[in-house]
Amino acid sequence: MAKAASRLFSLLLRLLAAAATLSATIIMATSHDSTTIFGVTLDAKFQYTPSFKFFVVANAIGCGYSLVVLFVPPRSSLSRLVIVPDVMVALLLTAAVAAAGALAHLGKRGNSHAGWLPTCGQIPSFCHHVMGALICAFVGAAAYLFLLLDTIHTVLSPLLPSSPS
Amino acid sequence: MAKAASRLFSLLLRLLAAAATLSATIIMATSHDSTTIFGVTLDAKFQYTPSFKFFVVANAIGCGYSLVVLFVPPRSSLSRLVIVPDVMVALLLTAAVAAAGALAHLGKRGNSHAGWLPTCGQIPSFCHHVMGALICAFVGAAAYLFLLLDTIHTVLSPLLPSSPS
Repeated sequence: MAKAASRLFSLLLRLLAAAATLSATIIMATSHDSTTIFGVTLDAKFQYTPSFKFFVVANAIGCGYSLVVLFVPPRSSLSRLVIVPDVMVALLLTAAVAAAGALAHLGKRGNSHAGWLPTCGQIPSFCHHVMGALICAFVGAAAYLFLLLDTIHTVLSPLLPSSPS
Repeated sequence: MAKAASRLFSLLLRLLAAAATLSATIIMATSHDSTTIFGVTLDAKFQYTPSFKFFVVANAIGCGYSLVVLFVPPRSSLSRLVIVPDVMVALLLTAAVAAAGALAHLGKRGNSHAGWLPTCGQIPSFCHHVMGALICAFVGAAAYLFLLLDTIHTVLSPLLPSSPS
């Protein structure tokens, strides 16, 4: 009973991760805005920023992996091994959120010491898209963190009462 | 014999992670450079960039944790539970490297679409420090990835031959 509940919990987390990373990919990939200041056109697309490109690729990988792993038979040895790619994907999504978040924060606040002006005032639509994508990707990364904790709990609980050398 | 080798491997990885994160913290925290262009002073310190502040805090936490966990008795139940903070620290260090790496790349290359000029030409000493800190922190994060894979291998290998439901 507890095992079935844990399996359902992990299935729901994978579906949540797939939905969140898919949304993050689509929202970031469709973000676009442009404005003209003093005759200079400021064009904003995710392709212009390496961190946002990495974000899209990482979330697409996260989404694809989350869907593929749903087809792994739950009682097979393979199902125990998915913890290894789970760790990789959790790290990948975390890196994507952190890198894109750092650039999004810079776009919003700027950095006067480096002479980088904030751009969100000029391209609000792009910034809103990025913010939405970041929230979705954060949910995806958090789902993977909980998946890892659930797997660790499942694997460790039978081992903890005993104290083997 | 194999268990002792695995324990030695994990001890060495923790020492490597502690040394790498300590170096990253010190190198980033001591980075400073300034230059004057057209009468305007461009001052560079890690405190001026939120991602670099996060980097220093995350690496300091990673270093402190790596040292504290060395004192956990190797045969205790507690030693099995350290995988949970290990996962957290691996994610934290990855996020720190990604966020600081995104800003370091921007400093080196700039982003013409956003009107952000590269700054490394003016403050090369600061950029070299940041690059050194990033390499150290990457080694620390990689050490934690290998630690996780080693723990997973140790915990999973006795379970894999059997096929419990």
